[in-house]
Amino acid sequence: MALIVHKYGGTSMGSTERIRNVAKRVAKWAHGGHQMVVVPSAMSGETNRLLALAGELTPATTTVEVLRELDMIAATGEQVSVGLLAIALMAEGLDAVSYTGWQVPIQTDSAYTKARIQNIDDKRVRADLAAGKVVIITGFQGIDEHGHVTTLGRGGSDTSAVAVAAAMKADECLIFTDVDGVYTTDPRIVPEARRLRSVSFEEMLEMASLGSKVLQIRSVEFAGKYRVPLRVLSSFTPWDIPIDEEAASGTLITYEEDEKMEQAIVSGIAFSRDEAKIAVLGVPDRPGIAYTVLGAVADANIDVDVIVQNVSHEGRTDFSFTVHRNDFSRAMDLLESKVVGAIGASGLVGDPKICKVSIVGIGMRSHAGVASKMFRTLSEEGINIQMITTSEIKTSVVIDEKYMELAVRALHKAFDLELPTT
Amino acid sequence: MALIVHKYGGTSMGSTERIRNVAKRVAKWAHGGHQMVVVPSAMSGETNRLLALAGELTPATTTVEVLRELDMIAATGEQVSVGLLAIALMAEGLDAVSYTGWQVPIQTDSAYTKARIQNIDDKRVRADLAAGKVVIITGFQGIDEHGHVTTLGRGGSDTSAVAVAAAMKADECLIFTDVDGVYTTDPRIVPEARRLRSVSFEEMLEMASLGSKVLQIRSVEFAGKYRVPLRVLSSFTPWDIPIDEEAASGTLITYEEDEKMEQAIVSGIAFSRDEAKIAVLGVPDRPGIAYTVLGAVADANIDVDVIVQNVSHEGRTDFSFTVHRNDFSRAMDLLESKVVGAIGASGLVGDPKICKVSIVGIGMRSHAGVASKMFRTLSEEGINIQMITTSEIKTSVVIDEKYMELAVRALHKAFDLELPTT
Repeated sequence: MALIVHKYGGTSMGSTERIRNVAKRVAKWAHGGHQMVVVPSAMSGETNRLLALAGELTPATTTVEVLRELDMIAATGEQVSVGLLAIALMAEGLDAVSYTGWQVPIQTDSAYTKARIQNIDDKRVRADLAAGKVVIITGFQGIDEHGHVTTLGRGGSDTSAVAVAAAMKADECLIFTDVDGVYTTDPRIVPEARRLRSVSFEEMLEMASLGSKVLQIRSVEFAGKYRVPLRVLSSFTPWDIPIDEEAASGTLITYEEDEKMEQAIVSGIAFSRDEAKIAVLGVPDRPGIAYTVLGAVADANIDVDVIVQNVSHEGRTDFSFTVHRNDFSRAMDLLESKVVGAIGASGLVGDPKICKVSIVGIGMRSHAGVASKMFRTLSEEGINIQMITTSEIKTSVVIDEKYMELAVRALHKAFDLELPTT
Repeated sequence: MALIVHKYGGTSMGSTERIRNVAKRVAKWAHGGHQMVVVPSAMSGETNRLLALAGELTPATTTVEVLRELDMIAATGEQVSVGLLAIALMAEGLDAVSYTGWQVPIQTDSAYTKARIQNIDDKRVRADLAAGKVVIITGFQGIDEHGHVTTLGRGGSDTSAVAVAAAMKADECLIFTDVDGVYTTDPRIVPEARRLRSVSFEEMLEMASLGSKVLQIRSVEFAGKYRVPLRVLSSFTPWDIPIDEEAASGTLITYEEDEKMEQAIVSGIAFSRDEAKIAVLGVPDRPGIAYTVLGAVADANIDVDVIVQNVSHEGRTDFSFTVHRNDFSRAMDLLESKVVGAIGASGLVGDPKICKVSIVGIGMRSHAGVASKMFRTLSEEGINIQMITTSEIKTSVVIDEKYMELAVRALHKAFDLELPTT
């Protein structure tokens, strides 16, 4: 008998008919002799509906008090889901009970709309499991030390499920979603893209941070910290496929590097179209200049991604970085009005029409020449590289947005990702 | 500076536009120097939508576990309302904070879907009021001693508002609704019906129990127990009418009998179409027979309203009572199969096409002949009275359903209810 956590996304919970299917799938696992904890998202569209209502009333200034109320409102979507799923499970003849974040309780900090989980008390849940009940816990939310409702931000239900699995030392956490696993790249761009049967935690982390939307990045971080056995799989297979078959489907996130005999050098190609490039030109090259430029941007709550500083030439350097495309004009205005003149830079240029393409692979650590193969491939396609950053297991380039599909396809082929692994 | 509780019904909260109007009305009172606590219902239609979703999944057997989940689901409607109203108040420039039943906390028993309030801890609310905030509290719900969410049943937000007003010793509790007060009878039946400027608590209690839908009967009981100054008024007047004018509108529920110099003998005509009549004929007249008949009905969770036992004749009596029309066939089946034979009664007859019409008035206590005037009026209209019950301040008759409107109009005229009171 194992302790299993299932997480179901909003699409899987999108109607009472689908909720009934979720209940049948959970019941199958429970009848298979497992202790079951289930973390469902809100019904698809519900969180948006609630926040749109709030948006029609929200005052001009978004204070912490307003954010608190947004969490109060948004948290109800998951509360409805857990109640409905509990009822559906009872209709399947199982004992079931639902809990909100505050009932468990799932303790968080007070950062409304993007709170972080601090502690989960599993006493109540364990008692119910011991009594033979399926326990259903709201995703996406918790309670802070003052008894206020908090939410974890978009996709937070993944994090809730992983955190519950970690706190309870679950044998496995299954994330049921609308894709059937993690792919070498987006199949909409490369039809030959393959599902990975397993992917290392580090690779998954890079892919999530690079724009692959399969799992919320914080849930991957959480999984890594507590080494939660995590599997991403489809909720659109028939509910009654055998447990053994289901338990081997999707993509498993692994923590042991030697699990696979032969490690693929590159596991996947990630990309993101959501970025924009900004360069401050002719910056006097003196200590503290990076802080002066990026500090101003950070103070305006704009996240910076890729940062490149060229070697200086005659005491001056060019300083480039990327921001989310939504923040582009705000960042440009800010730099123009407050930074360029103040530091004596010679100019400011920006380009919102760029994209970021990355190769990710744990095998890159021990294989030289992977990055240069990437650069050669792009060069052979006539694609100019504007910025480069590297980490131990990924290499990212910033290129003109119009070359994105071409670059992804060429790299997918160059690294043999369409071939089945042994 | 007074402490004022406002309660707004689902229609008043039915859209963001209407919520904005509620916020402006509350802001007017706050700017008028009052400490404000607001109890809103769920947006109209929301509770029905949630329970309909649950209904599509509910198992055949409704256990206490199922009822618990229904409360979990239904309670979210009000949680959304309080968050939206708090945001709308902030947009009006006020400090505001919302609380759910469990956050206050409003302690209830564990009777899911019809819980009763046991205790309200007002410490948190008082601190916020002292800090100059408008406090918004979910209606309809609370938390039981085990930390489960409970709801108070349909119309429970009235009870929540009155209970909060009682616990905080509020100066007045204003129930804003879609009618502008309590009328001598339903204006849809008698166009000449007048709004009562005040009505005694006892009369209000009788009217609520007799089918007048203005206030939930439990909220009236609660108000009476703690003598909460209670006013029913319209939320569809312009929000910016002067506070003095608004504070004198609607209908005030009073507790002092001598408040009015001249007490009207009859204050209103109530009626209910929801009942059905059952008679067990030729029952042997011996001690315990009422319990034998009605005990069986009560054990099946069927509420009995009017009960009449005729004087016995040759050791046998007829035993009549009314039940809710929805329970009629179940009650008939039960009596036929388990009671009639067992007690040796001679027969069973029933009629679901009856109605109950009542005259209510605190002045009836000191005026003889009120009931006989009622009977004479009905007789003059050729309406046969099938059953009669009386209390100190009301007289009810059961008549054929088809005479209901005629009876109400005739009685309204006979007791001069269309004339303005001094």
